[in-house]
Amino acid sequence: MGILLTGGTVVTAVDTYQADVRLEGEQVAAIGHCITKAGDEVVDVSGCYLFPGGIDPHTHFDLPIGTMRTADDFASGSKAALIGGTTTIIDYATQFRGESLQEGLNNWRKLAQDKCYVDYAFHMAITEWNDAVAREMESLVTEQGVTSFKLYMAYKNVLQVDDGVLLSAFRQAARCGAILCLHCENGDVIDTLVRQAVQQGQTTPRYHSLTRPALVEEEATRRAVLLAKMANARLYVVHLTCTGALAAVREAQNAGQPVYAETCPQYLLLDETYYNKAGFEGAKYVISPPLRSRDNQPELWQGLINGTLQSVATDHCSFNFIGQKDLGLHDFSKIPSGMPGVETRLSLLYTYGVADGRINLNQFVALTATNPAKIFGLYPRKGTIAVGSDADITVWDPRYEGVISAKTQAQLVDYSPFEGFEQKGQAKYVYLRGRLVVAEGQLTSSQAGGQYLCRKPYSTGEN
Amino acid sequence: MGILLTGGTVVTAVDTYQADVRLEGEQVAAIGHCITKAGDEVVDVSGCYLFPGGIDPHTHFDLPIGTMRTADDFASGSKAALIGGTTTIIDYATQFRGESLQEGLNNWRKLAQDKCYVDYAFHMAITEWNDAVAREMESLVTEQGVTSFKLYMAYKNVLQVDDGVLLSAFRQAARCGAILCLHCENGDVIDTLVRQAVQQGQTTPRYHSLTRPALVEEEATRRAVLLAKMANARLYVVHLTCTGALAAVREAQNAGQPVYAETCPQYLLLDETYYNKAGFEGAKYVISPPLRSRDNQPELWQGLINGTLQSVATDHCSFNFIGQKDLGLHDFSKIPSGMPGVETRLSLLYTYGVADGRINLNQFVALTATNPAKIFGLYPRKGTIAVGSDADITVWDPRYEGVISAKTQAQLVDYSPFEGFEQKGQAKYVYLRGRLVVAEGQLTSSQAGGQYLCRKPYSTGEN
Amino acid sequence: MGILLTGGTVVTAVDTYQADVRLEGEQVAAIGHCITKAGDEVVDVSGCYLFPGGIDPHTHFDLPIGTMRTADDFASGSKAALIGGTTTIIDYATQFRGESLQEGLNNWRKLAQDKCYVDYAFHMAITEWNDAVAREMESLVTEQGVTSFKLYMAYKNVLQVDDGVLLSAFRQAARCGAILCLHCENGDVIDTLVRQAVQQGQTTPRYHSLTRPALVEEEATRRAVLLAKMANARLYVVHLTCTGALAAVREAQNAGQPVYAETCPQYLLLDETYYNKAGFEGAKYVISPPLRSRDNQPELWQGLINGTLQSVATDHCSFNFIGQKDLGLHDFSKIPSGMPGVETRLSLLYTYGVADGRINLNQFVALTATNPAKIFGLYPRKGTIAVGSDADITVWDPRYEGVISAKTQAQLVDYSPFEGFEQKGQAKYVYLRGRLVVAEGQLTSSQAGGQYLCRKPYSTGEN
Amino acid sequence: MGILLTGGTVVTAVDTYQADVRLEGEQVAAIGHCITKAGDEVVDVSGCYLFPGGIDPHTHFDLPIGTMRTADDFASGSKAALIGGTTTIIDYATQFRGESLQEGLNNWRKLAQDKCYVDYAFHMAITEWNDAVAREMESLVTEQGVTSFKLYMAYKNVLQVDDGVLLSAFRQAARCGAILCLHCENGDVIDTLVRQAVQQGQTTPRYHSLTRPALVEEEATRRAVLLAKMANARLYVVHLTCTGALAAVREAQNAGQPVYAETCPQYLLLDETYYNKAGFEGAKYVISPPLRSRDNQPELWQGLINGTLQSVATDHCSFNFIGQKDLGLHDFSKIPSGMPGVETRLSLLYTYGVADGRINLNQFVALTATNPAKIFGLYPRKGTIAVGSDADITVWDPRYEGVISAKTQAQLVDYSPFEGFEQKGQAKYVYLRGRLVVAEGQLTSSQAGGQYLCRKPYSTGEN
Repeated sequence: MGILLTGGTVVTAVDTYQADVRLEGEQVAAIGHCITKAGDEVVDVSGCYLFPGGIDPHTHFDLPIGTMRTADDFASGSKAALIGGTTTIIDYATQFRGESLQEGLNNWRKLAQDKCYVDYAFHMAITEWNDAVAREMESLVTEQGVTSFKLYMAYKNVLQVDDGVLLSAFRQAARCGAILCLHCENGDVIDTLVRQAVQQGQTTPRYHSLTRPALVEEEATRRAVLLAKMANARLYVVHLTCTGALAAVREAQNAGQPVYAETCPQYLLLDETYYNKAGFEGAKYVISPPLRSRDNQPELWQGLINGTLQSVATDHCSFNFIGQKDLGLHDFSKIPSGMPGVETRLSLLYTYGVADGRINLNQFVALTATNPAKIFGLYPRKGTIAVGSDADITVWDPRYEGVISAKTQAQLVDYSPFEGFEQKGQAKYVYLRGRLVVAEGQLTSSQAGGQYLCRKPYSTGEN
Repeated sequence: MGILLTGGTVVTAVDTYQADVRLEGEQVAAIGHCITKAGDEVVDVSGCYLFPGGIDPHTHFDLPIGTMRTADDFASGSKAALIGGTTTIIDYATQFRGESLQEGLNNWRKLAQDKCYVDYAFHMAITEWNDAVAREMESLVTEQGVTSFKLYMAYKNVLQVDDGVLLSAFRQAARCGAILCLHCENGDVIDTLVRQAVQQGQTTPRYHSLTRPALVEEEATRRAVLLAKMANARLYVVHLTCTGALAAVREAQNAGQPVYAETCPQYLLLDETYYNKAGFEGAKYVISPPLRSRDNQPELWQGLINGTLQSVATDHCSFNFIGQKDLGLHDFSKIPSGMPGVETRLSLLYTYGVADGRINLNQFVALTATNPAKIFGLYPRKGTIAVGSDADITVWDPRYEGVISAKTQAQLVDYSPFEGFEQKGQAKYVYLRGRLVVAEGQLTSSQAGGQYLCRKPYSTGEN
Repeated sequence: MGILLTGGTVVTAVDTYQADVRLEGEQVAAIGHCITKAGDEVVDVSGCYLFPGGIDPHTHFDLPIGTMRTADDFASGSKAALIGGTTTIIDYATQFRGESLQEGLNNWRKLAQDKCYVDYAFHMAITEWNDAVAREMESLVTEQGVTSFKLYMAYKNVLQVDDGVLLSAFRQAARCGAILCLHCENGDVIDTLVRQAVQQGQTTPRYHSLTRPALVEEEATRRAVLLAKMANARLYVVHLTCTGALAAVREAQNAGQPVYAETCPQYLLLDETYYNKAGFEGAKYVISPPLRSRDNQPELWQGLINGTLQSVATDHCSFNFIGQKDLGLHDFSKIPSGMPGVETRLSLLYTYGVADGRINLNQFVALTATNPAKIFGLYPRKGTIAVGSDADITVWDPRYEGVISAKTQAQLVDYSPFEGFEQKGQAKYVYLRGRLVVAEGQLTSSQAGGQYLCRKPYSTGEN
Repeated sequence: MGILLTGGTVVTAVDTYQADVRLEGEQVAAIGHCITKAGDEVVDVSGCYLFPGGIDPHTHFDLPIGTMRTADDFASGSKAALIGGTTTIIDYATQFRGESLQEGLNNWRKLAQDKCYVDYAFHMAITEWNDAVAREMESLVTEQGVTSFKLYMAYKNVLQVDDGVLLSAFRQAARCGAILCLHCENGDVIDTLVRQAVQQGQTTPRYHSLTRPALVEEEATRRAVLLAKMANARLYVVHLTCTGALAAVREAQNAGQPVYAETCPQYLLLDETYYNKAGFEGAKYVISPPLRSRDNQPELWQGLINGTLQSVATDHCSFNFIGQKDLGLHDFSKIPSGMPGVETRLSLLYTYGVADGRINLNQFVALTATNPAKIFGLYPRKGTIAVGSDADITVWDPRYEGVISAKTQAQLVDYSPFEGFEQKGQAKYVYLRGRLVVAEGQLTSSQAGGQYLCRKPYSTGEN
């Protein structure tokens, strides 16, 4: 009646050991030797690692931008996630101006409903602030399990809020036990630089990078840290890319401030020279913040090792090269910003992190599952392999060797930013709440079995 | 035939969950629900936490100092350890001048043999360096499982080595996969200050503290960090007490240097005002480094939370107030330096750390067991509750409330430095490799069942 | 035909020595022994220091705020300056919205013309930015000797500009050889805090301080430093008050960035407890940034000593307690912000700096005259006692002892923020371009002899 | 009866202005226009800068090392100094073991007496410490004008003292108003590395550099700073070469600790690649600390600009390549350590500092004269051009262009480490206490007219 995964090596954020894992219903029922029960289905996972199913805390599926939507919706995006070994995503729902938070959340819940193959939750992006929104923040936390909110320091006149709003939001978040996710780039400066570049005819993709230099990210990150400090609130810096921002985060942590930060595989593995590719190729890498110079990367890896960075997310936000990215063919500022990644997160971090000896297996698990679960209130239901936790298990075969390519990907987008990258290891089987959803690298079902996840607020006394 | 601990909450360095734990032979066989086997002894541990048995990586049992020995030998000290919830110690064996490392190690193994109630290993303290010693370091690592070595930057003319020796030792350790434990105080400066104080008739216990100011520890710690950096070697700073030394460690860690550090309960909870106690009372607190001003403590706690400090040890080194400490009645420099603590480590850290909300349960386990096990090559056999690990389990009853007192302690010493301190929680049952050794807070056997532990060297690629 | 000041001690930013100083026409003609010429007027200045006339680089005379103007206009303000030993001011001319820079400058030049008793120059405050303003910046630098410009990061909807404007202004300043003076407080955050305080009925003067915490200044200072770095431009931080901002400035300087900063006597000597004075007294101290906690002061003094801070200015901006400050009797946000100080700058810094042993005479001169002259392009005409420089000399009698009081001040305002403060030393004689303007502490003429000063731009290669 | 230098530009550490300078007797009598007296000798110095005569605070003339002495004695060395524009040196007298300080000082005074062409003072190097030496320190300060003392952290078994001695010396220096000059390299580590290198047959000059890595200097500098802090004493770090040591000094200064540091032209202009020169050429550059990698140089220059480094000295300690350096032909550890430089200090710093736009004229004067004079108690007699100061004036002709070469140097040594370096500017005339000693770049007299200088102790209250 249960499922026995036998012969594998269980990996948590702290332990690595050989044991059988027995799933019953939707949970892990037992771990150990000789724990099989009559009627159990026995699955041989010899030679494989059992990772807690990955949690990607930063995706944008079915996101409307101007007149278009991202290439991946919740169906295609979440299928790609599963194939890559990720069983939970936290997507960003957005309150567009004029909407209530509730309206924004409802819109996104509808987009995901019955289409999402992984379990899912939402951060709520706030673009307008007033007393009503403040009250809604509280009710979303307590009644709907939305315990993290995002604000943008960039995208002037669209998503950007001013520092007074940031402080107000931090204060309310601190009251509610919520955490704020901040996009840290100085939007006013970027707006000036972009307008000036376009005016001067600097319109190719590389100007995307040149008009968003690392200093605008460092500046905004320092500002975010100080605003959070004023409010005694928790801060999660999304998609951190550069050493200056990393230093800002580290200094705050050393002083005991509850600041967390994520980076993404693209910032660890790609760099700004990609914008110089021939023709319009650079547009594939137009993301915000942009790719940086390669000398930022050793410190980012070091940040993953020494705990400055808690999380590796994807910021998956895919646009087709043909038909979408090319909107900016003659003006980089019109290129939709974003790239795919939800499918390749685990394999890239495993290949270039674990297999290359930069991080160990426990750090891999912490970064891809346990830490995001703890920071965002999903733990202990998600994020670990422990008795009583959801049986979200990624059976990882480290012997697999392949090459990443758009031709073979599940993501519904016409290119891969990691085209040609070597891949070591693969999600051989994936279980979502005890149900086999991927076998031998293929989806086993055409049913979208993902559930909406209510998350817990932070309560004082936790660390 | 096994033992089933049922109804408790398993705590590891990352997870906290309710599950039964089944011990079979000397290991943990299974964790989960419905895992009992016919013939199992079932022990109800409802309401209790199951912690991995504590590892105290810094004890001095049966240590000879001049003409005396510490009050606790391996028998009394290890019994006290067990009662306090600690199942493994790493004691410091010493090569006295003129001896080989092997002779030193043999001496200590004899002291422990058949007398130690907990599993035990040895760091090897080196007081002389030459080519033969360098070769012995390697053979101790590879053949006898001694993978950590200690050197003293203090105790001039006795234990202290010079910086050339330190560098040589670091280099050899890096080659062998060993880690160096350093006592970081500037012995030359202390020697000068002590001689001068005694000469000026400043002989009461408080001058112990005044002749070893925090700056001599900060200085030595910075020096140790830079010497380790030159050798590309791993460093473990023992008994760190002050903010300056903490900053030195943190800066090194931020730069990616493999530096680890421990502190002790006395530095977290007592302070230098204890040296001003009436009469000769201050002698009870004569330890090296000495107690510091109270304003160091918030940063030390912060260091436990943010990972700068990996370990809470005791530096247990007990001397009776009557008959030993009083040797220095008229000259503080003759007071034997050290205090007991192996028995109260877990209860103090639980009471003032966990119960007071400073650290959480997972951090408690990491600091008292998992981190020391990983750093010193005992993991995964020791330091966690995982299938296949030794069944060293401390069943902790958080409902216990008591008061620490010399009258009720197991430590064979005539005072307690924590006399009158409140205690929350207690090791209700303790299992050592599957065998019940403490029940209801009392030893259950008069047999010394501790084993010598061979430890693993560090191998490149681990973090 | 010349004037010989004999028997005094000449003090420059580096030297202190006894010598006669001979003035001829408007300049210093000679320094030495036996330099008198036939016909010289000989003035005995035995026992006195000869300081270069003070330069106050931050005043607001005759400033319109809403429906009122400051209590001091250029006549009363500059007379008070002279009596206090200051012979040059740099006042802030303002471009109000809708005006060109030229219009703003013209307005201020008219206010000063024929009324100012000290030599004067203007920083130009910019409140709107566009291509025309950018071009005006250049012409003001090259044609009118205005080589410093001010922008406000505070005063939302009134003076505040956004970060894009700041960057653009920095870039243009770097091109023109100009320096930007920034008021570093986060106006968006302050606006939010003030509105919220008022809304909650928190209307007494102390809420002025609580709604502008030190962190908003630290944040803005860090932002200013990073924006200047992006533009490779020179930055002068006005009225720096707190340790966080000081650290931001110091870090930039250590990295070789040309960042300068001033503080004011009120931040060195008064503190936030003044806001708790009985009744409405606190309003006298309503300035922006507000007075801080006393623990900032040792680091500010240290910054004066170690060169982090180059300048002590006053931000003189006086409002009468009766009739002006009381506009905010029921709402702190309506209290006009500012206090007098131009008269007491030298005596306070001498009394509490030099006489109290915190700084030496050379540092005193550097901070009050030489550094401002060099930073703002007045040097070597102003700011030192050297052959060929303007004969602006303050003959300082260190034997004077008195008490500061509104009753005896020249400033045309009905209170003194330093009421009752001890004063050591006094400007016994003051010479402006070779003309005696103060004798025995009294003005010697009723004629406004101040000249407008064209300043030099910065040219690459200077340090 | 006086001398009038007319038409030149006077440069001090703060001012630059055109004026005549009138010398009378040994002092500067007047500066200004129209100051000539009947009978004055008038010297046209049009187009030249008048610098205060250079002060080289770090020379070793006639130094015995083992069986040899340095190539330059006080005659040849001081002649070279004059020709280079330096009018004062502070040489290092040494107490060899077994001697009293007084004996050491007497030995050096005899070496200089009647042979030295520049004014001179001595730092006293202490190699043994006891109560008698402590008392001597005080009497040298108060009775013989020796107010600075040197201790070595390197040269094990020869000059090196331990940290207890350092602390004792710092404490006594603080009592006496003296300053300690420290050679900051970790001698124990160097000794170990050198013995090991030689043992392994690594004997070419480049191993001199490899056995004294920058980290041993950084370590010792940090240690020196902390020991000075413990004693509340003043520290002057000699010949600082690397970024790590610079950071240690800067951090101390930021915290208000009175720490000063010097660097030398060789560390600003040469680098460790010189040790790889063909044959035995590298021996010419064997100095301690050794030349470093080029990437240290920008931060050293920055340290000169922002005031972290106060002084540019030479550590002139010359040995002939043939007959002296070649003692170490087969063993780098036998190469006498040191190089010449007293002659080229000003021209190198002028050429690569001022003419290349790295520093300005005032900084040049501060670094080469004013700061050393102030730090070491020679000011205001030496170190500036001011009325009443000694008429030590270097008339610098900036139009001179030449090339540095051993062939043309005055230094009595058979090579120049700066062979072939471009030189801009030259000491056209040099006056020592009012007497012309160099004209058109040539000595004008064969008489050694240097005087011994009694220096002043530091007194509290100075900065």
